[in-house]
Amino acid sequence: MEAKHVNAITRATKNILTSHLGLDVKLLNPFVQKNVIPSNNVAVILGINGQLEGQLICTMDETTAISIISTMMGGMPVEAIDDMGWSAIQEFGNWVGGTMATELSLDNTIIDVTPPVVNNGSSTFRSASSFITLPLESSIGKIDVHITIKKVSA
Amino acid sequence: MEAKHVNAITRATKNILTSHLGLDVKLLNPFVQKNVIPSNNVAVILGINGQLEGQLICTMDETTAISIISTMMGGMPVEAIDDMGWSAIQEFGNWVGGTMATELSLDNTIIDVTPPVVNNGSSTFRSASSFITLPLESSIGKIDVHITIKKVSA
Repeated sequence: MEAKHVNAITRATKNILTSHLGLDVKLLNPFVQKNVIPSNNVAVILGINGQLEGQLICTMDETTAISIISTMMGGMPVEAIDDMGWSAIQEFGNWVGGTMATELSLDNTIIDVTPPVVNNGSSTFRSASSFITLPLESSIGKIDVHITIKKVSA
Repeated sequence: MEAKHVNAITRATKNILTSHLGLDVKLLNPFVQKNVIPSNNVAVILGINGQLEGQLICTMDETTAISIISTMMGGMPVEAIDDMGWSAIQEFGNWVGGTMATELSLDNTIIDVTPPVVNNGSSTFRSASSFITLPLESSIGKIDVHITIKKVSA
C-alpha cells in the first residue's frame, strides 16, 4: 500500500470526525497488523473496487459507537443501539468511505466504495494481505481504521 | 433485487459446491430477511461494485467450514482452522464471487467483486437494505448465502 493512499485515508477519517462530528482527534502512530484484526464489538465494513481493491473496516467499542450516534443526533441521549442507531453507524461508514474516495481522487486514484455493512459482536476479521491500522483517539473514545488494499494492475 | 440476479448468484454458488467441491447440493427456499443476519461463527464477506452494489456474505458453522477446507485440500483431515484453513475459506469466497461475476456478465450485468474478508466469532451483520438468503444444504452441512444489492442508476 502506498503512503499517499494511507495519507488520503487518514485525512478523510480525521476530516469526518472533526468537521462532521466536531471532535478533537489525535492520530496515534499507524501500524501494520498481520492479517487478523479484532472487531471491538462494533465494526463498519466497506468494500473498495476500482484502481485499488480491498476493504476498509472501522472498529470501535459499543460506548464509542453510542457516543458517535448521540453526536450525530445532535447530542440526543442514547442508552443502547437500536435500529436508528445502527443506521447512524452505517451513515458514519458512508461518510468515511465517501470522503476517502474524494481524497483519493485528488491524487488521481479512482475508487468505488460499496454500501456499508455493520458487524456487531465479538469477532475477528482476516484478510489475505496485511491490514494497516490508523488508531484515532478522541474525546468519545478510540476508533481504529483498518485498511487492506492493493493496487489493481491496469 | 431482480430475480435474474438472484438466479445468477444461486447458479454460481451451487456450481462451486458441485463442480469445485464435488458435493450434492440442495437449494432450500430463498427468503428475505430484514436487515440483520447471524454470522454462524464463520462468514466470508465480499463487496460488490459496478452495475450492482452491495455485499455478498456466506455464513456457515465451524464444522462446515472445516469440511470445506478438508474437501478443498483433497480430503486431508482438518481438526481446527489454522492460517492455511482461513486462506482456503477466503479462496472459497473468491470462487463464489468470481463465478457470480461471470454468471451475471452472461446477463449483461457487469460487477466488480472485492477480495474476501473472513469474519470469525459470534456476531450479526446489518445492512441498510434487506438481505435475500439462499440456504444451501449439502452433505457437509448448511451454507447460507446472503445478498444485499441494489442496482446503480446510470
